[in-house]
Amino acid sequence: MRTVMMPEMTWPEYAEALESNPVVFLPTGTLEQHGPHLPMGLDYLLPYAISREIAEEVGGVVAAPVTYGYKSMTRSAGGPFFPGSTGLDGNTLSCVIRDVIRELVRHGARRICVLDGNYENLWFLNEGIDLAMREVGDKGVRIMCLQHWEFLTEETLAQVFPDGYPGIELEHAAVLETSLMMNFHPELVRFDLVPDNAAAEAPCYDVWPPRREWVAPEGSLISAKGATPEKGALIAAQYRRDITAAIRREFYELG
Amino acid sequence: MRTVMMPEMTWPEYAEALESNPVVFLPTGTLEQHGPHLPMGLDYLLPYAISREIAEEVGGVVAAPVTYGYKSMTRSAGGPFFPGSTGLDGNTLSCVIRDVIRELVRHGARRICVLDGNYENLWFLNEGIDLAMREVGDKGVRIMCLQHWEFLTEETLAQVFPDGYPGIELEHAAVLETSLMMNFHPELVRFDLVPDNAAAEAPCYDVWPPRREWVAPEGSLISAKGATPEKGALIAAQYRRDITAAIRREFYELG
Amino acid sequence: MRTVMMPEMTWPEYAEALESNPVVFLPTGTLEQHGPHLPMGLDYLLPYAISREIAEEVGGVVAAPVTYGYKSMTRSAGGPFFPGSTGLDGNTLSCVIRDVIRELVRHGARRICVLDGNYENLWFLNEGIDLAMREVGDKGVRIMCLQHWEFLTEETLAQVFPDGYPGIELEHAAVLETSLMMNFHPELVRFDLVPDNAAAEAPCYDVWPPRREWVAPEGSLISAKGATPEKGALIAAQYRRDITAAIRREFYELG
Amino acid sequence: MRTVMMPEMTWPEYAEALESNPVVFLPTGTLEQHGPHLPMGLDYLLPYAISREIAEEVGGVVAAPVTYGYKSMTRSAGGPFFPGSTGLDGNTLSCVIRDVIRELVRHGARRICVLDGNYENLWFLNEGIDLAMREVGDKGVRIMCLQHWEFLTEETLAQVFPDGYPGIELEHAAVLETSLMMNFHPELVRFDLVPDNAAAEAPCYDVWPPRREWVAPEGSLISAKGATPEKGALIAAQYRRDITAAIRREFYELG
Amino acid sequence: MRTVMMPEMTWPEYAEALESNPVVFLPTGTLEQHGPHLPMGLDYLLPYAISREIAEEVGGVVAAPVTYGYKSMTRSAGGPFFPGSTGLDGNTLSCVIRDVIRELVRHGARRICVLDGNYENLWFLNEGIDLAMREVGDKGVRIMCLQHWEFLTEETLAQVFPDGYPGIELEHAAVLETSLMMNFHPELVRFDLVPDNAAAEAPCYDVWPPRREWVAPEGSLISAKGATPEKGALIAAQYRRDITAAIRREFYELG
Amino acid sequence: MRTVMMPEMTWPEYAEALESNPVVFLPTGTLEQHGPHLPMGLDYLLPYAISREIAEEVGGVVAAPVTYGYKSMTRSAGGPFFPGSTGLDGNTLSCVIRDVIRELVRHGARRICVLDGNYENLWFLNEGIDLAMREVGDKGVRIMCLQHWEFLTEETLAQVFPDGYPGIELEHAAVLETSLMMNFHPELVRFDLVPDNAAAEAPCYDVWPPRREWVAPEGSLISAKGATPEKGALIAAQYRRDITAAIRREFYELG
Repeated sequence: MRTVMMPEMTWPEYAEALESNPVVFLPTGTLEQHGPHLPMGLDYLLPYAISREIAEEVGGVVAAPVTYGYKSMTRSAGGPFFPGSTGLDGNTLSCVIRDVIRELVRHGARRICVLDGNYENLWFLNEGIDLAMREVGDKGVRIMCLQHWEFLTEETLAQVFPDGYPGIELEHAAVLETSLMMNFHPELVRFDLVPDNAAAEAPCYDVWPPRREWVAPEGSLISAKGATPEKGALIAAQYRRDITAAIRREFYELG
Repeated sequence: MRTVMMPEMTWPEYAEALESNPVVFLPTGTLEQHGPHLPMGLDYLLPYAISREIAEEVGGVVAAPVTYGYKSMTRSAGGPFFPGSTGLDGNTLSCVIRDVIRELVRHGARRICVLDGNYENLWFLNEGIDLAMREVGDKGVRIMCLQHWEFLTEETLAQVFPDGYPGIELEHAAVLETSLMMNFHPELVRFDLVPDNAAAEAPCYDVWPPRREWVAPEGSLISAKGATPEKGALIAAQYRRDITAAIRREFYELG
Repeated sequence: MRTVMMPEMTWPEYAEALESNPVVFLPTGTLEQHGPHLPMGLDYLLPYAISREIAEEVGGVVAAPVTYGYKSMTRSAGGPFFPGSTGLDGNTLSCVIRDVIRELVRHGARRICVLDGNYENLWFLNEGIDLAMREVGDKGVRIMCLQHWEFLTEETLAQVFPDGYPGIELEHAAVLETSLMMNFHPELVRFDLVPDNAAAEAPCYDVWPPRREWVAPEGSLISAKGATPEKGALIAAQYRRDITAAIRREFYELG
Repeated sequence: MRTVMMPEMTWPEYAEALESNPVVFLPTGTLEQHGPHLPMGLDYLLPYAISREIAEEVGGVVAAPVTYGYKSMTRSAGGPFFPGSTGLDGNTLSCVIRDVIRELVRHGARRICVLDGNYENLWFLNEGIDLAMREVGDKGVRIMCLQHWEFLTEETLAQVFPDGYPGIELEHAAVLETSLMMNFHPELVRFDLVPDNAAAEAPCYDVWPPRREWVAPEGSLISAKGATPEKGALIAAQYRRDITAAIRREFYELG
Repeated sequence: MRTVMMPEMTWPEYAEALESNPVVFLPTGTLEQHGPHLPMGLDYLLPYAISREIAEEVGGVVAAPVTYGYKSMTRSAGGPFFPGSTGLDGNTLSCVIRDVIRELVRHGARRICVLDGNYENLWFLNEGIDLAMREVGDKGVRIMCLQHWEFLTEETLAQVFPDGYPGIELEHAAVLETSLMMNFHPELVRFDLVPDNAAAEAPCYDVWPPRREWVAPEGSLISAKGATPEKGALIAAQYRRDITAAIRREFYELG
Repeated sequence: MRTVMMPEMTWPEYAEALESNPVVFLPTGTLEQHGPHLPMGLDYLLPYAISREIAEEVGGVVAAPVTYGYKSMTRSAGGPFFPGSTGLDGNTLSCVIRDVIRELVRHGARRICVLDGNYENLWFLNEGIDLAMREVGDKGVRIMCLQHWEFLTEETLAQVFPDGYPGIELEHAAVLETSLMMNFHPELVRFDLVPDNAAAEAPCYDVWPPRREWVAPEGSLISAKGATPEKGALIAAQYRRDITAAIRREFYELG
């Protein structure tokens, strides 16, 4: 195979790839602010890059990324206060996922992995998958849905955060995402602009209209000063190992 | 400005760009077969690349491409016979466009150009724009929607097709798209695999289920043998001139 | 058979007609301005009349016309500037088509021809048909979708436009539609009011809000002065011959 | 005014008519079995004809009829047992009504009367009107929704049913509808085929799947033997008087 | 069985109950004004209580009540003039019903009785049921839909209204509902506050915006002074007898 | 005020309550398995009871509970393996929330607290709220959305789990929910049936079709043996204190 990236394949190449009943990855993300130092396409760029690595491991195929996703929430991604955060209605996103999966199944794909990079997407992805499964019926389709950070191990976190892990709820445009971007897309990281902001403090609920004071002016929930390309490579390597293992288990071992 | 590409911008860069009330381009396409020699992402890759050129001319911004679009029809793009062609339901696409425009307007954008690369998208884009306009109300928003090939001039066609233009209805994965890809993404063109197929012959209506015999086995509607990078550059230059002129007229001169 | 028109049939007549597995025609149009000389129901009146003629040829049945269709676009039908143009949302129209086809199939119809008279309807008809086909599954249903003017031959156009055919994009409330109405519904044509307007000039893209200056004050895109009942009869006869032939080929010969 | 029928008007005629802020009638019905003696278009043909009469009285305008409506229920119209009964999903019908009203209001209409002829339509009309009212906001729009038989007076019923009125719940394809059709469309009534069926007996609830035995084989809920054109004229005259009075009261006197 | 109420059952209890293929009741109502003397939850409280009684008779199960239903109409329930009346859009209600039935069928239920207490719900319930039936396909599911007052007999009405029955169209927050509440939920009736209002007078059609004068200031359409707990018990007993009989006939005898 | 429970109020009581611009609580949950010892209505019964307590503290009003919610996921609530778990489609739930909020705002409510008891509901509640906020526009509406367990403090958890807190992801039908039910609805808890199952072990992603082995046969994710009414009272008291404080802060102090 010349490439695992479906948008770069010709259709005969894809047809050939389908013969082995490969895992087809559907990277999902959105267009959203990621602080003053990271590009707004991060949430789909990372899943696209991570999917490529895993697909190369398992002989898979990576579909075009879904570039727009669910709305930014203030506590997890800064909310509507930052120009550029571009959210679909929940049902729109679920329909996109349903439609794309319906089509992948029509092509002959039976193993599909939705690999997400935008925290807020999850439930609308779940719903889209459920709607698709209901529609495609009993064709032996298996779908997996994951958000990459869920795979981070204690070991990785200990190495990435030698001073202690502040928790996933603060990791927007912070050390993890910045390190991963320094690994996959260093040309898109403006490390000189990483803010030194304190950790955001928000309560355990949401309000509408959202409160501006729940998020730092810079848009990152905690400083990314500790990010390095090496940490990014470390995380990417762990993903490559552990997501691959999960893929193999779910699609091949357990069947 | 470091870049006109919104997914590569940070939010403060986008915020700064918005101050000049720029044209925000929304490139739309789909994932679809384009014969044995062209990549399946072509329909969004070309609008993304063309938008970049025009945005650089007019000081615009290019949003993330909409990577999935309306269903392939047999007469215009080969229909469901080729694995990889991945179509959204019409309403799904219209809702994506409506939602993204609603968000761009919320950011402060008032000049939006939907630049499409998938023939079948057009009416669902129109509808998405109409739904968004109804929703955003009287904020002075102006939206333009175009499909790039509509801008081809007699002069360009005469140069690209010295033996006569077979007509736009056959130009799927053919000389125009192949030449443009040789200009913008030469690494994704497998020119050695260009088929030598005869022009497709289809009647003036559609049928369901579609008829396989309306399209060549290769998926291109006519041979792309005549494509060259030079022709691609010629077309791109004409687009740069004429789409830019149209943009200027609609958004700045006429207001 | 007393009549081919389903709204005028009793149900036992329809039941009897269904026994021969006839082509059921679904005429679609809209309520839309057609200049100062043509009635606003034209877009459904013509398909209803044309369907009757073809149905009589092929032993078919004509369902009730769908009287409201997609929105008038400025370049093709004058846009929202003329009171009376009444457009459904795209998804509404697609759902109407989907629902009616689902019901016709439930009745036992297996050959359905959507015969359209409103240019802007096409893609929402396509989508409605596709949604219905997905739903009804594998029952041997075949559907054809056509817009009548697509059947015009070079010969007919040469006779109707002895001074040269200005092109289909200008044929709104112009010579073709006026002649056809003079043939089918002469009592609804106010030929004395045919405007002498010049051909509309519009660019190759759309804008929102639409521009009033893209369409003549009268609403017809070019003058219909050249229309005659004889031309209408000529077109109708060609339709009767060629649409009938296409119907026979698709539903009976190719199966 | 040459005509009150909007589909037969040109747009300047409609524009002129709108100047007096007329009542715009929207006739709604469906395509549905009406026994072996009545045409299946009855449910939209009657409202169209009745609307014309009232519009002529009050200086109104009659829009194109909505030709497809809600599903036939077994107890009130025979259900799915008769080929030809063609029902839209409820939401589809509501969206059609919402869209058409939105457009009439955009034209400038402020007085709209939905005049229905299909019993099952009512609640989906109500909902479509409510959705439209929510959308159009505070423009002074007033909408009336009626089903014509609700206007029948004791006096009329006494004359039409000298042996006693069997009740509206049996009046499908029976004396009232048959008489009205003999008045408005005698050419579409096959009086020789009026069945002599006994009154249908159905319980006070619905079941799915529906029960065939709840409705007579002929599809009419009770015999229409007693219908005459004179009774039709009597009813039509009473409608003309009383619906006109209600229209005047609601749209002009109460404002 | 400890209880017939599904929300109070554990899942193994429900699983056990399902083994006998019981009738599963789905009580539907809404939150709506019921005059100054009745609680706003009445429309779901009554069906929940009635369902319990019938379920105990027939060995059925009562699902959680659907607590929000369709919009209050002025003529039948006072319309939007009373704070507290809380209406869903029609399509929302239909989707709730469709979804819940789809799930009950997935559990294994094959006999489902939608027992409604809000007049305005009916057609959206019908539609939800129809959508569910279309989806679940050929699994032998039977669904019954009823509004409890439709079961009132002449005998009952004669006893409840010794001075004559004013008709069901006035029975909102009036003698029937008040008596039933005095029987099932006496603690929620403020009998001292029953208004002595005259019967509402409304025409035979609806208008938007609705007219305040069509309904008494108190919100009840006629006085409930004649209500007593004994009448409530009488009605409840008749329901228990007759609804049970209908359930038995439809689900067991006719099958 | 006689009661804070809106379904038990008459409309004049609600109207009077609205005068103080109270917080209106909208309790949301679903019908879902909760192990062999807890009732399936738990997820709406608890929020209804908790809302009552908080409403009594802050002078609020409690609307009817939304009794059906989003689908049970295997990792968090056992998934589709247990009869009784009854899930709406995501969009259905969002529309219910949108519609109810729209109506509460129409009543005059400006402070609304969605208090949820079903983990899987959250994002569809968020979306419903967002859709409602977009619709109601600039009326000064403030909405808060919370899931009660998010308020649990370290102190409470230390008291409830003297041997260590196993984490919220296992708390389905476990110690927290069981204790709360023993406090609020002891008659609905079958403590003798609490299973002694080990903690469920599931990976960090979801798969479709779901895997039965990810959840214990009993349906509870970990044993609830440690539950006591005293712990339930403790949690309820902490909720009463801390949720009340949050409500006061958001709706009154911050405004």
